[in-house]
Amino acid sequence: MTIIITAFESSPDRGRGLARDMPVRWALEEVGQTYEVRPLSFAATKQSAHLALNPFGQIPTYEEGDLVLAESGAIVLHIAQTYAGLLPAEAEPRARAVGWMFAALSTLEPPIMERSMAFITEQQHPWYEARLPLLDARIRTRLEALSNRLGDAEWLDGAFSAGDLLVANVLRRLGSSGLLNDYPAVAAYVARAEARPAFQRAFAAQLAAFEASQGA
Amino acid sequence: MTIIITAFESSPDRGRGLARDMPVRWALEEVGQTYEVRPLSFAATKQSAHLALNPFGQIPTYEEGDLVLAESGAIVLHIAQTYAGLLPAEAEPRARAVGWMFAALSTLEPPIMERSMAFITEQQHPWYEARLPLLDARIRTRLEALSNRLGDAEWLDGAFSAGDLLVANVLRRLGSSGLLNDYPAVAAYVARAEARPAFQRAFAAQLAAFEASQGA
Repeated sequence: MTIIITAFESSPDRGRGLARDMPVRWALEEVGQTYEVRPLSFAATKQSAHLALNPFGQIPTYEEGDLVLAESGAIVLHIAQTYAGLLPAEAEPRARAVGWMFAALSTLEPPIMERSMAFITEQQHPWYEARLPLLDARIRTRLEALSNRLGDAEWLDGAFSAGDLLVANVLRRLGSSGLLNDYPAVAAYVARAEARPAFQRAFAAQLAAFEASQGA
Repeated sequence: MTIIITAFESSPDRGRGLARDMPVRWALEEVGQTYEVRPLSFAATKQSAHLALNPFGQIPTYEEGDLVLAESGAIVLHIAQTYAGLLPAEAEPRARAVGWMFAALSTLEPPIMERSMAFITEQQHPWYEARLPLLDARIRTRLEALSNRLGDAEWLDGAFSAGDLLVANVLRRLGSSGLLNDYPAVAAYVARAEARPAFQRAFAAQLAAFEASQGA
């Protein structure tokens, strides 16, 4: 069955792979599944045809036969549970890998996304500069803990998993902040993830889509 | 096998059921599994014995034989996948219910938690009052979308699921904000969830633990 995902026709990150189609593309590349992309304008994501797929009007969505899914985390989990390559076969390591997926989205992402949202929506406010150290401190608490757990391991818990995929994907958002510089083990971990051929193919695909949207 | 979870010995919410052991207790009650609680002081959550269970030093954790899990979302998913009662049997409705779990944690919770965190950590700052309308607007965008999808349905997608459990659990945090008042279908949905016997048992258990911590 053909897999169809939605993505922004012109991503606001200008092709840096920070939109939420990126982890879904990456997961599909890791498990060797081809997919088609239905590009949407930002306005189209708020219209009824898309709201039927995702009531919150976000990308990506995932269609495969009769199945319609929203939420990048749920889509990556579905891919990992359906196709081999992103979750251990044994029950306990598998549950732990899923635990890292939730850690990425519930524990690491909120302070990282709060900093990004402040940059995008609050820079013109007088408090932006004063709040930034508070936001950075919350992120550093998480990076310190992650660095301590990671040590000099290649991945978080054995072989690369959907947990590593989502953790590395979230940490990429810190790229321009400089915050990873103080956590070299974490920075090296993100670099290892970005060096994976599946990541490279997914990144190239979303960059090509952005460049095409900018015209010839 | 005995299920053991960790929780705060004296919850900072003073027994209102807003700490993250609540959804795990609730899920265990829904599937009819008994559990034991290992209460921890806040200081103990940052010590090495607990960091071995959760590197980020958070509660709850979940132990069942050799399995150790962290992240309330992952724990609820594990419970729902292991015991009957919280996920549909068929693959597609099951994937969609898991999608609602991720919507609760990735789409609904971040703006709600950001408002809570600002209340707890930024009230003494001069920008707190000025920022509040921004935070409320982000939450209202989500509540509006949720209300539109919910309509007059009892639950989000057929029978009550782990998706409803996490969505209702997240929305409970808005209790004292007044924000739910403008979305009566959503408020009624939360009230229906709170009226479930399994919720009532879980709530009573965490409240009793708090009251015991306050001494005789």
